Amino acid sequence: MKIKGKHYETIWFKPDNPSVVQAIDQRYLPFDFVIEDFNTVEDIYYAIKEMHIRGAPLIGVAAAFGIYLALLQYDHKEPLDLYIYKKAKLLKSARPTAVNISYCVDKIIGFISPDDPISVNTIRVMQEVISLMNIERENCKKIGEYGVKLIEDIYSNKGLKTVQILTHCNAGWLACIDYGTATAPIYNAFDKGIPVHVWVDETRPRNQGARLTAWELHQHGVPYTLISDNTGGHLMQHGMVDMVLVGSDRTTASGDVANKIGTYLKALAAYDNNVPFYAALPSSSIDWLTADGIKEIPIEERDGKELLYGETYLNGELKQFAIAMEESPVCNYAFDVTPARLVTALITERGICKAEKNSIFDLYPEKKPN
Amino acid sequence: MKIKGKHYETIWFKPDNPSVVQAIDQRYLPFDFVIEDFNTVEDIYYAIKEMHIRGAPLIGVAAAFGIYLALLQYDHKEPLDLYIYKKAKLLKSARPTAVNISYCVDKIIGFISPDDPISVNTIRVMQEVISLMNIERENCKKIGEYGVKLIEDIYSNKGLKTVQILTHCNAGWLACIDYGTATAPIYNAFDKGIPVHVWVDETRPRNQGARLTAWELHQHGVPYTLISDNTGGHLMQHGMVDMVLVGSDRTTASGDVANKIGTYLKALAAYDNNVPFYAALPSSSIDWLTADGIKEIPIEERDGKELLYGETYLNGELKQFAIAMEESPVCNYAFDVTPARLVTALITERGICKAEKNSIFDLYPEKKPN
Repeated sequence: MKIKGKHYETIWFKPDNPSVVQAIDQRYLPFDFVIEDFNTVEDIYYAIKEMHIRGAPLIGVAAAFGIYLALLQYDHKEPLDLYIYKKAKLLKSARPTAVNISYCVDKIIGFISPDDPISVNTIRVMQEVISLMNIERENCKKIGEYGVKLIEDIYSNKGLKTVQILTHCNAGWLACIDYGTATAPIYNAFDKGIPVHVWVDETRPRNQGARLTAWELHQHGVPYTLISDNTGGHLMQHGMVDMVLVGSDRTTASGDVANKIGTYLKALAAYDNNVPFYAALPSSSIDWLTADGIKEIPIEERDGKELLYGETYLNGELKQFAIAMEESPVCNYAFDVTPARLVTALITERGICKAEKNSIFDLYPEKKPN
Repeated sequence: MKIKGKHYETIWFKPDNPSVVQAIDQRYLPFDFVIEDFNTVEDIYYAIKEMHIRGAPLIGVAAAFGIYLALLQYDHKEPLDLYIYKKAKLLKSARPTAVNISYCVDKIIGFISPDDPISVNTIRVMQEVISLMNIERENCKKIGEYGVKLIEDIYSNKGLKTVQILTHCNAGWLACIDYGTATAPIYNAFDKGIPVHVWVDETRPRNQGARLTAWELHQHGVPYTLISDNTGGHLMQHGMVDMVLVGSDRTTASGDVANKIGTYLKALAAYDNNVPFYAALPSSSIDWLTADGIKEIPIEERDGKELLYGETYLNGELKQFAIAMEESPVCNYAFDVTPARLVTALITERGICKAEKNSIFDLYPEKKPN
C-alpha cells in the first residue's frame, strides 16, 4: 500500500530501534497521518481497546507484538509462564468478538519456553511475529487472487461493464498488514484493469467506511462512492450492486459470519435481490470450536458516546461535538452475526468455499474434529 | 403534545396576526426550540425544501398554508388561476417523494374560484386549511386508537412484560400536526399505562431519530434507547424487538411503503425474525394511482454534504463539522420502498388492513377504480 508514494504497512518494528513497535494511529484518518510508538504490552492493549489499531487480522498481529514487548519488559520478579499468562489474558480482554487476538497470542506464546534464557525467547518470538506478519500479508494476497475471479466472472457476465461492489466497515489493508481482506480482490481487479466501483457504507457509529475505506480506496485510486448504511437495500433493489464483499471478525466452522454491526442487514438485502454476498477472511479469523454464531459469539458493546458525539479535526486535534441529546440512553453493539444461509461463499487464503461445515473442512482438513 | 408544560402543535396561524404562519423550526431540535415566521408561499416552499418542517403529513398541511399565504400575496397582475397554478407547482416541487403535498395542495385549490373576490377565496381557503389540520390531527388520533390494540395484544401475549418497539426516522407528532403516525399508538399505549420501550434508529444522514424522535419521546416521558441504524437486525435476532412501527411518505394502493431510506432493511430483518412490521399512515399518504412502488415512486436525492458534515449547536448557532474526507463522492437517496410482501399490516385512520389492494380498498371503497 502506498501513501503519497511511500510504501507502508499498518504495523512494524521501529527502524534502528526494534524495542519499539510502531503503527498507523487510525483514529486520525482521514484527517491526518499519525504514527504511534508502543513501548509496552500495556500500550498495545490500550491501542487495541481504544481502536488506534483495529481490524481483526491487524489486532491479532498487534497482540503478538504485545507479547514481544512483554518479553522485553520482563523483570524476573515472577515465573515467566505466569507473567506471560497474565499479559496474554490482558491482551485477549481488549476486544471480545474477533478471534484473531486469541489465535495469534496462543500461537506466539507456544514459542516461549521458561527453560530458555529470556533473550532467546525474545528473539524467537520476534521471529515468530515476523513470520505471523508474513503469513497474514500472504494470506490477504491470496484472498485477492482467489476473490478476483469472482469479480472477473461478473465483469464478463455483465458485458464488460463496471463491476459494482458494496462493502461495509473497513476490511481493507488498514485492517490487516497489507492488501486487506474484502479489499484484496478489489485492489487485485483494479490493478488488472478491470473497471470496479465501490459503494462504501459509512458504518456508524465509528464511520470506518467514511473515514478509513474511503481514504484507502482514494489513496489507491479506486473509484468509490460514500453512502449511508441505510442505502444499500435501495441500491440492490435497483440493480446497482453486483456483489457485496465484506470482511469478518469471527467466522464459525459452520459458516456464520460475525462482522461489523449492520452486515446482517446487507446480507438480507443481498439475498432478497439475488446479489451474491461474500465474506473474505484469512483462516486466523475462523473459530473452529463454535457451531452457532448467533448464540455463541460474544458481541462487544461499546460506549454510547460513539453515537451521541461526532468527531472532527480542528487545529491538529480530534474534537468531539454533540449531535444528539447528550442524556439519551444508547445501546451500542459493535458486531452482528450473518447466518451461513445468507452467505454465498467465503473467500479464504486456500480458495473459495461454501459457508458450511463440509466445504470449510475440505479446505482445512487438518482442523477437522476426529 | 406538551413542551415544558405548554401545549404545542407543529404549525399554526400567528395569534393576533393571521397573515403570518408560524411553525417549529425543526432544524434546531433537540438543541433549541425555535419558532419560525412565514410571510409568503416562497417562505413555506423553502422551509419544506430545506427541512425546517418535515414529515409527510406536516409538509402536506404546510403546503396548504402556502396556498393561503399565496392568496394573501396575490397582486391581480395575472389571472388568479394561472397564479395559483404556478404557486401549486412550486410547492409540489419542494420534495418529490411524499404524496401529501400534492394531495393537500390539490384539495385546497379546489376551493378557489376565480369568479369570487380574492377576500372570499382567502377566507374559504383559511377555513379549509383549518379543516385539513383538524382532519390530519384526528386521523393521527384514530391511528393511535387502532394501533394501540396491536400493542395491547403483544403485551398480553408476552405475559405483561414491556413491549419493545423499533422505529425508524421520525413519524412522530413533529412529522404531523399532533400525535404522530407511528408514535400515535405508542403515546396511546403509554398514556394507558402499558409499559413500552422504543428502540430509536438514529436515521442517517439527517439523524431525525436521534434528534427528533428521541426528543419528543423524552418530552412525553416514553422510555427509549437510541441505536445506530445498523443495530436493529441484531436486536431482532436476539428477541429484543416485539414489533417494528414506522410511518410512510407514500404508500401505493397495492401496499408498497415508501419511507425514510433504510426502512426496507428493517422490514427484511423483521420478516427474517418473525417480528411484525407495521406502517402507520393517514390516507393522505396513500397514492391511489401507483401500483408498483419500487418502479414508480420517485426517490429524492439530497445533497451529499449531509453525509460529509456533522451538525452541532454552538453559541446559539448550528455549526457543521467535517466528519469524512470532504472530497468524497456521495450518493444520498432519502427514501426507499418496502415491498408489500414484507409489511404485516397498515394502520390507518379507518382501521388496520393488510398491505394489499383488496384490503386497502375495503377500508376506502370510494377510492376503488371503476
